Amino acid sequence: MRTFKNDRFLRALARKPVDRTPVWMMRQAGRYLPEYRASRAKAGDFMSLCRNAELCCEVTLQPLDRYPGLDTAILFSDILTIPDAMGLGLRFVEGEGPVFDRPLRDAASIAALPIPDPEGELRYVMDAVRTIRNALGDRCPLIGFAGSPWTLATYMVEGKGGQEFARIKRMRFEAPELLRQLLDKLVQATTLYLDAQACAGADALMVFDTWGGVLDHAGYRQFSLEPMQRIVNALKARHPQIPVMLFTKNGGQQLEAMAATGCDALGLDWTTDLGEARARVGSKVALQGNLDPLCLLGTPEVIRAEVATVLASYGPGPGHIFNLGHGITPEVNPDHAGAMIEAVVQLSPRYHQVV
Amino acid sequence: MRTFKNDRFLRALARKPVDRTPVWMMRQAGRYLPEYRASRAKAGDFMSLCRNAELCCEVTLQPLDRYPGLDTAILFSDILTIPDAMGLGLRFVEGEGPVFDRPLRDAASIAALPIPDPEGELRYVMDAVRTIRNALGDRCPLIGFAGSPWTLATYMVEGKGGQEFARIKRMRFEAPELLRQLLDKLVQATTLYLDAQACAGADALMVFDTWGGVLDHAGYRQFSLEPMQRIVNALKARHPQIPVMLFTKNGGQQLEAMAATGCDALGLDWTTDLGEARARVGSKVALQGNLDPLCLLGTPEVIRAEVATVLASYGPGPGHIFNLGHGITPEVNPDHAGAMIEAVVQLSPRYHQVV
Repeated sequence: MRTFKNDRFLRALARKPVDRTPVWMMRQAGRYLPEYRASRAKAGDFMSLCRNAELCCEVTLQPLDRYPGLDTAILFSDILTIPDAMGLGLRFVEGEGPVFDRPLRDAASIAALPIPDPEGELRYVMDAVRTIRNALGDRCPLIGFAGSPWTLATYMVEGKGGQEFARIKRMRFEAPELLRQLLDKLVQATTLYLDAQACAGADALMVFDTWGGVLDHAGYRQFSLEPMQRIVNALKARHPQIPVMLFTKNGGQQLEAMAATGCDALGLDWTTDLGEARARVGSKVALQGNLDPLCLLGTPEVIRAEVATVLASYGPGPGHIFNLGHGITPEVNPDHAGAMIEAVVQLSPRYHQVV
Repeated sequence: MRTFKNDRFLRALARKPVDRTPVWMMRQAGRYLPEYRASRAKAGDFMSLCRNAELCCEVTLQPLDRYPGLDTAILFSDILTIPDAMGLGLRFVEGEGPVFDRPLRDAASIAALPIPDPEGELRYVMDAVRTIRNALGDRCPLIGFAGSPWTLATYMVEGKGGQEFARIKRMRFEAPELLRQLLDKLVQATTLYLDAQACAGADALMVFDTWGGVLDHAGYRQFSLEPMQRIVNALKARHPQIPVMLFTKNGGQQLEAMAATGCDALGLDWTTDLGEARARVGSKVALQGNLDPLCLLGTPEVIRAEVATVLASYGPGPGHIFNLGHGITPEVNPDHAGAMIEAVVQLSPRYHQVV
């Protein structure tokens, strides 16, 4: 295991004592930052940025340089790199989000899906990990990540993000065996992908389950959690020292089952009370979260007060990583993100005094 | 209290024994039914249908005539009648949903909002209740309803439905006093409105909190639940015999607090396990739900199996009202809705055998 000048994030993941609560932001390298928009303009479109290791490194480091309080880097990439490498033809349409040119529409296309080689079609991601890892040195850890199989399947079957999920839900209810075939392939591909990120230099791994929360309670266990469980098992077997984090948006009713996977931490969105979550699963996992990202539209004073509320909700002792409950949104003033980070730096030490 | 030939729904609300689990569907009078589409074509646009008491009655009775297994009627109307009567100018745009011509954009417009007279500007709703009540006779009960103050405020401030809720969230974080002023007016208006529906003949009242689940945990208690609590208190004081139901979409983490309002039943969406919910709050309230409405896109066999799962999840004994976890969607085949109702009729008696 690497050692870092700033190891707060990894210590908190291991529920070891820290001097203050570590903090980072989902999508911290993103459109709210003018320096990111400049780098992206250099690259052209979003996927060209993802495919350029030097620019990925540049944007990954930007928030760390701007905000000295940030405690970890996260790979700049997208959860849809795997479906793209499987041949679905990913495009990002302005105002619409991701769209696949060739969404999955039948059993034959699912059977024909290749498992991408992380050092082949997806080598650009591993190159980005290596470049960032090298640039970071012992400054702080680097998080690698992937989308959950269910979340990827949702995009691949629907063809884009959406609200209703009629196609994937029909598959869930009417063709569960076909859905399982698709999820099996995605478990394989995602396991290889995260394994390769660990080998390339990621110090922690996170699985983003953006759409697990749209499933019915039993369906979540079968079609979202079970595939993630297999990924956790495989990663833990190969990289026992690398912490694994799971985040299901709108998954607050499933925390016990998520913690039972053997992962190291759970990401929480803002609908969950952090104190209640700690009482439920805090003896098993670290907890990451959970300020409403839209709170950053408020004034710095409001942001500071809400940070204080989140910190107080978790309470004293280790095991909390401060974060937003979802990605930071493009319209946020960068100074407001700074106000949030500053507030964590200033207000959290009291929760970590040695008794 | 009126007496009915079919009183399963009211008995279940009171957690009294029944011969089988009662069943109805949110939006049971709706676009999935060809007879509804014909009535709507006669009316012209959606709000003209809502304003025509005879046609409201016609569409309210349609699902009851088609499906003999349905156990209750629900007023055909919309939750946005109150903001419309407050002068915001409601329109329904094809493919976009509801839009307000004059969304709330400043403190002055909130201060100037009138409280609509339920027998004045909203008399058309009360006329619909009276017409339906008269047509139903002692056949079955009639549910009246309203949107929750937070949900109405969300539409009124955003100007339309949406995913991000940046305007209302900014108000929640930056101008909570202004938001409270708006919610206070909506509590007043909604209380008068539901009180008038009870006087006009509604036998049970339901509050739909479509957007409470987008709030942070503490924000839900303050800005969604607290206003609903005041409505429950007022209705219980004036109509102690009329059951009140609360439904917060994505509110599964808040059931204890919701049950503590003194309401009679909670609606559950499909993300909550009905058995766990019963263990948490089943001694205080009846529970309504919670099949994923998109399950109705599956085959009748799949629907039957999923109905069996929902019934088994609640388990034996009274207090369960079968429903979807949200409104039935327009693309559903009416025979599939029929298959769901039939399955409840056939499969639920075993859970109500006298021991």
